[in-house]
Formats: sequence, structure tokens, C-alpha cells
Amino acid sequence: MAGKKVLIVYAHQEPKSLNGSLKTMTVEELKKQGCTVTVSNLYEMQFEPRATRKDIVGDLHNPDHFNYGVEAWKAYENGCLSEDLIEEQRKVKEADLFPLYWFSMPAILKGWMDKVLVQGFAHDFPKCYDSGLLKNKLALLSFTTGGDEEMYSERGPSGNIRYLLWPMQHGILHFCGFSVLSPQICFGPEYVTEEKRRQMLTSWVKRLQTIWEEKPINCVPEWYFGNI
Amino acid sequence: MAGKKVLIVYAHQEPKSLNGSLKTMTVEELKKQGCTVTVSNLYEMQFEPRATRKDIVGDLHNPDHFNYGVEAWKAYENGCLSEDLIEEQRKVKEADLFPLYWFSMPAILKGWMDKVLVQGFAHDFPKCYDSGLLKNKLALLSFTTGGDEEMYSERGPSGNIRYLLWPMQHGILHFCGFSVLSPQICFGPEYVTEEKRRQMLTSWVKRLQTIWEEKPINCVPEWYFGNI
Repeated sequence: MAGKKVLIVYAHQEPKSLNGSLKTMTVEELKKQGCTVTVSNLYEMQFEPRATRKDIVGDLHNPDHFNYGVEAWKAYENGCLSEDLIEEQRKVKEADLFPLYWFSMPAILKGWMDKVLVQGFAHDFPKCYDSGLLKNKLALLSFTTGGDEEMYSERGPSGNIRYLLWPMQHGILHFCGFSVLSPQICFGPEYVTEEKRRQMLTSWVKRLQTIWEEKPINCVPEWYFGNI
Repeated sequence: MAGKKVLIVYAHQEPKSLNGSLKTMTVEELKKQGCTVTVSNLYEMQFEPRATRKDIVGDLHNPDHFNYGVEAWKAYENGCLSEDLIEEQRKVKEADLFPLYWFSMPAILKGWMDKVLVQGFAHDFPKCYDSGLLKNKLALLSFTTGGDEEMYSERGPSGNIRYLLWPMQHGILHFCGFSVLSPQICFGPEYVTEEKRRQMLTSWVKRLQTIWEEKPINCVPEWYFGNI
């Protein structure tokens, strides 16, 4: 939708991968719609996923007992987070839709979440879940899997893929206030035909065309786990 | 139990934290039992959580299209993984019990899992889950939470904590063949009395004394999600 601002947090090493194509096509489609699109390409940026003392500029709140959560929170309040984190927070703040690309949530993306979505910026108890500080923003997870769809079905050996998404969709995104749209999942792209891979790309672009009308999923345990 | 080999993968920045005390007391208790204990102290080691081309020594299998999973697998088979990863795999191989310490699975620990538990070493489809390559080993997650126990109950805003553990206990550990023991959880240590914190430490040490007799939990969806 024209005027919308979208942040893509992209974590894949290979531009020629299916995830890379998804990213490129997303940027194209959203720009065509008149959206402003920003990409945080974590591997290209060599984003530092370790949460350490280096993320805080200047003196610590309690140098005798380093508590990352507390220090990052205080540093956020005092404008003392390191530049790279401030920059990412600015991008999040400006974005309306916030799709994530990962292959099984690699550490580099987990590091982005650990360090960008800190207390004071994204949540501040009891401001969490429906009253999280990033409410009124949409988030969407997009990823590929190693196994096929059968493996991630209710009776498959990995169980319903919905279970795997719970900690991220509810524990991280919903916790920060995001409304979460249905995930975009490409099952086992390594084992399908080129034609099927192309379909994966085109169906995603098709979905993007009406994505602004979608209703968020219901991030509560009853919806997630209730109907098995 | 005398003769057992235990690997502790420890991910916390502050030695004076409750997680730090848990780690120290675990080492003491297990040594008292006659176990051999190894600690991978990820922050101290400055473990690199980003999964990149640098993890593979020498030529790539397919330099035109970098697929980390495939490259790490081939490198494992050919002995071409980087030294730090080979060393961690050696520790895993030797261990019988494998407790993990984290605070909400920080990126540095996720990086350890991404890069140490690679195909060929930990799994090799269809050798996964009950036939995973690390079967006959025990694993145990130990961690502290920010919220209190109520928050992580069935009707609490975060849902049953069991749901959050599913991807790690089933999707990672069970996938590699580990038998998973009940997690050791210290709820909200920041908000309890010093006395209660001491109890958290002593009850863990008490548990350690009979830990070798414990039966693993049942990592299947029916057990995990069936009884709500």
C-alpha cells in the first residue's frame, strides 16, 4: 500500500538462494506498491550477534555485576547504546510491516532480536503483548525449511510447524506488541523442481499484493495449541 | 556418577549471576561425584555465532552458491571444519550428559548449536530424532527467566513454558538423538529474596545427586501439547 514503510530483516549468506530471491522480489513488489522499503542484510553488515559490554557506550549502570538486559535498557533510556543498535531501532520505529527472513532463525538474527528489541524500546513490563511498545506494527516471518511439509504436520516427526513458531511469534514479536501475520513458508525448496520453486516465489508476490488487508493471527495459547 | 563425562555449554556474561553460581556449583557437585566436567564458556571464549564461509577451511564444495548446511556437512566429512568447531564437536562426542545454560537462548548459544551440531556429526537424515547420531547421550536445559512462574503457566500471558522449550528440546536436541531430561528452571531470580535464590541453588545441587537415575521426558507432540 502506498506510503507504508517496510523493514526487511534478512539473514542468509547466499544472494542466489531462494531466500535471496524472495527478498529481491519482495523489495520490487513493495516498491511497485509505493512502499518505502529498507533492508537490514545482517550477513552483509556483519551484524555482531554477541550481546556484550561493547554494546554500551560509556559507563555501566552497575559495573560490578553485568546484567545485559538492565544495562541495555538504561543505555537505551540514556542514548548510550552503540551506533549500530540505535540505527536498527530507528528502522524498526519507522516501519509498519516488518518481515523476517531466516532459515531456522540463525544466530545472527537471534542476535539482532536480543540487542535491538531491548526493554524501554520494544517492551517495558507491564507494557508487553497487546500493550507492547511496538504495537500498531505488523510483523511477518518468512522462511524456508529443510524438511518437507509432511514432516511439519500434526502427525509428522517434527510436529505442527506452528509449535516451532510460538516462541518467536508470541514470545518475541507479540511480546513487543507486534500484530503477527501468517508466516510465509517454503517447504524443502532444495528437493523440489525449478518450476515449483518459481511457484513459491510467485505465490508470495501474489500474497504481497493484498497483504495490507490481511488479519493478524491470534497469538494466544488457545488458538495455537487448542485445536489438536 | 563416577566415570561420567559432562559438558556444560555456558552462555552468560556475568560470573556473579545466578547462572554463574549454578555453573560453579554444578562443576563442584559433579566433580565430587567423580565425573569429568568440561565447560564451554561461550562469552569467555568469544565464540563466533555467525555461520559464515570462514568456518570452512580450504575450498568450498560449491563456491557459486553458498549453502551453509551443505558446506558444513561436507567439511565435517572431510575434516575441513575450522579448529574451534572441531574442538567443540570433540567435547560433545565425549560427553554423556550435556547441560545447557542460557538466559532465553542468547544468540551466542544459538550460534554454537548452528555450527557445532552439523549434519554428519549430529544428524544425517533419516538418522534423526530417536536415531539421531548423538543418541545415548543425555541433555538438560538450565536457565533463568525474567518473568515469574505465573507468567509461564497454562493461563499466564506467556503460556506454558513447555511450549517455549519445544523447538530446543525436540527440534534441536531430540532431533540430534539426545534423550532430554526435565529442564532446570529458576523463575525470576531478580525478584526473589536472597534466601530464595540460595534455595534455587541448593535444590539444583540436590537434584544433581540423583540425576543419573532420572528418566528422560517424552519429546513427542502428544506429551507436549496433548494435556491442555
